[in-house]
Amino acid sequence: MDSHIAPVALDKAYRLINHGPTILVSARHRGVSNVMAAAWACALDFKPPKLTVVLDKIARTRELVESSGRFVIQIPTVAQAQLTYDVGSRSLHDDADKLAHCGVELFEMPGPGHDLPFVQGCAGWLACRLISEPHNQQTYDLFIAEVVGAWADTRVFHDGHWEFENADASRRSIHYVAGGQFYAIGDVVPVRAEEPAD
Amino acid sequence: MDSHIAPVALDKAYRLINHGPTILVSARHRGVSNVMAAAWACALDFKPPKLTVVLDKIARTRELVESSGRFVIQIPTVAQAQLTYDVGSRSLHDDADKLAHCGVELFEMPGPGHDLPFVQGCAGWLACRLISEPHNQQTYDLFIAEVVGAWADTRVFHDGHWEFENADASRRSIHYVAGGQFYAIGDVVPVRAEEPAD
Repeated sequence: MDSHIAPVALDKAYRLINHGPTILVSARHRGVSNVMAAAWACALDFKPPKLTVVLDKIARTRELVESSGRFVIQIPTVAQAQLTYDVGSRSLHDDADKLAHCGVELFEMPGPGHDLPFVQGCAGWLACRLISEPHNQQTYDLFIAEVVGAWADTRVFHDGHWEFENADASRRSIHYVAGGQFYAIGDVVPVRAEEPAD
Repeated sequence: MDSHIAPVALDKAYRLINHGPTILVSARHRGVSNVMAAAWACALDFKPPKLTVVLDKIARTRELVESSGRFVIQIPTVAQAQLTYDVGSRSLHDDADKLAHCGVELFEMPGPGHDLPFVQGCAGWLACRLISEPHNQQTYDLFIAEVVGAWADTRVFHDGHWEFENADASRRSIHYVAGGQFYAIGDVVPVRAEEPAD
């Protein structure tokens, strides 16, 4: 495992997606792995941490999620913007070598239960277990999951907080609008906070 | 109405929140208005546009949403970061003058059906109609709504796209992490896009 990857406490896992990054969803079933991009992912609860993600019925990754009940949400970086666009616009249905063609390299986190297809080079990773909600899945393409493991690149996430401002700009999270338009996350905005930071 | 506010076509409304900004939720019932901050809001569908938002059971705004079936999601700016933090950390239960104390000014959009409490000075606004899903609301604090009206500040959103890079930095969207830590949205990240921008 990359020496910059460290576990994130589960009660801080929501912070990896709280600022609204575009994410990559990856899943594997019976030896088939796939990765897709999604802007529609969101934290849902703190403890145990849960999240929502919208997976269209045409997405091959959705089939893998439904079959295996497990997936990874990861936070790609500025350096991975083209990869993110490409995995979001190409389908494994049309290109059996999609992941190689998009430059995706997969790895597994050490430890039991983490034998999932994690994408190399991301800023953070959330291992998820699907909570079956057939009505939401069928009616809204909306999937709910519990986060059962979390990790981050210590160069950008440290002590429960993003530190984009202290890292290379290529490691910032990316935020998709439409039509190939991405923004990187930007500068810190200071506020007078009443609660102590932790 | 502010001369910089223009309607956004409903099929482009999702783009106002696609990049994951922290948002303000406002609602009114029987003369009581309230505004809260939420980082957990997300697009859910394109046409008709739908979104999800997580509203905790202790939030007074949730009661107003449940009672009236209507609310506004709006995208605050860097200039409103303190306001956003303050409406998110103070409760109408404790301070009947919360909105005034937080510096919130409300207005109404012209036109029938838009008699909702819109927050002045934001970058975009989505008028929403609750889709009743009692199981999601009770089990997950998860609310689903259809977007029935959308508007944006033409200085930052034009022709269906954000143009933060061409506007004053104080008008950028803000993205909350935790403990008073906000980031502004940053720079454009170029990609080679296969689909034509529209």
